[in-house]
Amino acid sequence: MSTLVTGIGELVTNDGSLGEGPLGLVPDAALVVEDGAVAWVGPAAAAPAADARVDVEGRAVLPGFVDSHAHLVFAGERSAEFEARMSGVPYDGGGIASTVRATREAGDDVLRARLRELVAEMRAQGTTTVEVKSGYGLTAADEERALRLAGEVTAETTFLGAHVVPAEYAGRASEYVALVTGPMLAACAPHARWVDVFCEPASPHAFDGDASRAVLVAGRDAGLGLRVHGNQLGPGPGVQLAVELGAASVDHCTYLTGADVDALASGTTVATLLPGVEFSTRQPYPDARRLLDAGVTVALATDCNPGTCFSSSMALCVALAVREMRMTPAEAVWAATAGGAAALRRTDVGHLGIGARADLCVLAAPSYRHLAYRPGVPLARTLELPG
Amino acid sequence: MSTLVTGIGELVTNDGSLGEGPLGLVPDAALVVEDGAVAWVGPAAAAPAADARVDVEGRAVLPGFVDSHAHLVFAGERSAEFEARMSGVPYDGGGIASTVRATREAGDDVLRARLRELVAEMRAQGTTTVEVKSGYGLTAADEERALRLAGEVTAETTFLGAHVVPAEYAGRASEYVALVTGPMLAACAPHARWVDVFCEPASPHAFDGDASRAVLVAGRDAGLGLRVHGNQLGPGPGVQLAVELGAASVDHCTYLTGADVDALASGTTVATLLPGVEFSTRQPYPDARRLLDAGVTVALATDCNPGTCFSSSMALCVALAVREMRMTPAEAVWAATAGGAAALRRTDVGHLGIGARADLCVLAAPSYRHLAYRPGVPLARTLELPG
Ligand SMILES: [Zn+2]
Ligand SMILES: [Zn+2]
Repeated sequence: MSTLVTGIGELVTNDGSLGEGPLGLVPDAALVVEDGAVAWVGPAAAAPAADARVDVEGRAVLPGFVDSHAHLVFAGERSAEFEARMSGVPYDGGGIASTVRATREAGDDVLRARLRELVAEMRAQGTTTVEVKSGYGLTAADEERALRLAGEVTAETTFLGAHVVPAEYAGRASEYVALVTGPMLAACAPHARWVDVFCEPASPHAFDGDASRAVLVAGRDAGLGLRVHGNQLGPGPGVQLAVELGAASVDHCTYLTGADVDALASGTTVATLLPGVEFSTRQPYPDARRLLDAGVTVALATDCNPGTCFSSSMALCVALAVREMRMTPAEAVWAATAGGAAALRRTDVGHLGIGARADLCVLAAPSYRHLAYRPGVPLARTLELPG
Repeated sequence: MSTLVTGIGELVTNDGSLGEGPLGLVPDAALVVEDGAVAWVGPAAAAPAADARVDVEGRAVLPGFVDSHAHLVFAGERSAEFEARMSGVPYDGGGIASTVRATREAGDDVLRARLRELVAEMRAQGTTTVEVKSGYGLTAADEERALRLAGEVTAETTFLGAHVVPAEYAGRASEYVALVTGPMLAACAPHARWVDVFCEPASPHAFDGDASRAVLVAGRDAGLGLRVHGNQLGPGPGVQLAVELGAASVDHCTYLTGADVDALASGTTVATLLPGVEFSTRQPYPDARRLLDAGVTVALATDCNPGTCFSSSMALCVALAVREMRMTPAEAVWAATAGGAAALRRTDVGHLGIGARADLCVLAAPSYRHLAYRPGVPLARTLELPG
């Protein structure tokens, strides 16, 4: 079954061979989907026939957002912590413990319902690929459960046993690292594509460089790809460790030295920026321009989680990237689609070249520029195709 | 016909006699609507019978947002100007001229379609009362037309002939003021509830204190209520003029002296803050805390317009008020509902006391706090009732 999507006022393909500029823009475009993949792209006037036809009436279409960093398996919420933080209480990662307690106590059905609700909320806002991390279980059984549930909704599952040192291991971080790299990893690896660690010497709850290296190396040895939470709250070894070990992405990147930027520019690791976190914690935004100007590949993601950013909106990330990090609208849209795909080492999503997955985001607007020009307005939605 | 709305996890009434605190919060509430007005409010367990029943399943309900400042009668868009501004071109009000050209050239149907689309977009996001200004016509006929169209969608119509001095009056501001206060006002007053002026000596396009006073006094003499755009781009006489003349609201209020704050605190004029504008122009945010701490009544509104803030999202205003202006979530929600009503001198909207209009905003969340806690997520929608 083939479907012709026509009436596309502006098509973002992220494929320079199909259209203009880095976004591969095609005006007045059409696109044919066959068996869930893009089969044809071009001017609407030259479109071939197809079994079905969807007219988007002049709207802009882009690749579905790729949200490469999210924490969606949890119970409870932390709006009181958010309110306290907004009136001046600083964030140091300590609030994660309350979500760990609530998550351990919750039944599978509660966790599954919340997870599915959030994935549906994302999809309704144009996100068609989402990575989901564990990290609120912090026992072998609870982490394994989180990843099993995550695997029901996405292929991009990330083992984050090293999210924080749980309360019962306070003062015994090295024992906890032994658990994470030993029995917990053994239980979780079959359910995960990635391993991740919160490398943040500035936080009393997170992991230093040596512990982070141990977690990443053990994960790699178990066949997992590597991701790092790094350099969020202060300078640290996270970025350079990620590049050295060939991680797919290092996320946050707020506090960077020149050597960190050089490492990112010379390596294959994507810098994933999470501006919703800075919005929701009132912390300084990462210096996206410095990274882009150095030639680093930048992705944008939500970090959707109940503590530091309970937003599922990639459109907000784009608007914040433009307003607060001086990315151009085109750079921000690329980072939220192709950048996210690069951060997940996926070649089938994040663009609309021939053969790509037909994951389409349609805007209630004539141009991708409106995502930043019209902040807060729910313009983006996933285009659901017939058949 | 009466309708029982039940399953309200948290009801914001803005009525201290009905619930707790300044928001008049009622947990586990129900509400009865009869003939379009609130007829009963209380605990769900004590709810009376009604002809119809709507269960909101634990969601929070608040008064529909009152967006007391919007410019919705225009043609064209200015995303290119937005993009240039984000890469460093400063805003001085000059871009309004391009919207004036496009609006004058547009037919009624084009303007009406855009206006209705934006009002529907607002309603879909929980805004149930919106003020609509003219100000992109700037001839007697074009301003009158804008107000006639605005009157089709709202009772809150505002004559803003003194938006900027149009190009054809360049260097002849006093002649333009004579037009605005003479034939243009005569044509527009029958279609307007309010008169407004962009009082901004710092802008080469706007009006100084004397011109602003002339516009306001003429409007008042023609039976219109008063509103002022003031102190947006620099210090100026707008705020004190508004208070002196008993204006319902002075909007923007970014650059305030101690005397300005004192005047607002001692008068009856609401200070309407428009943080979407600062977000979209990268200008400093107004000091909301200083105003609130001085006892000034503060409203939040979008200023939705194609130049400085093309956002229709009151939820974004609430999130920005908390993040950027250090309002508490409760203060922000009050300002976006009861505050907007005060800025329009309306007692029938902005609260859910007995007899109020049954304008209900329902959140995909258990508490009003989530509007700031979950930025960018389209949580708010207008609850459409049967009958
Ligand atoms: Zn994270
Ligand atoms: Zn305005």
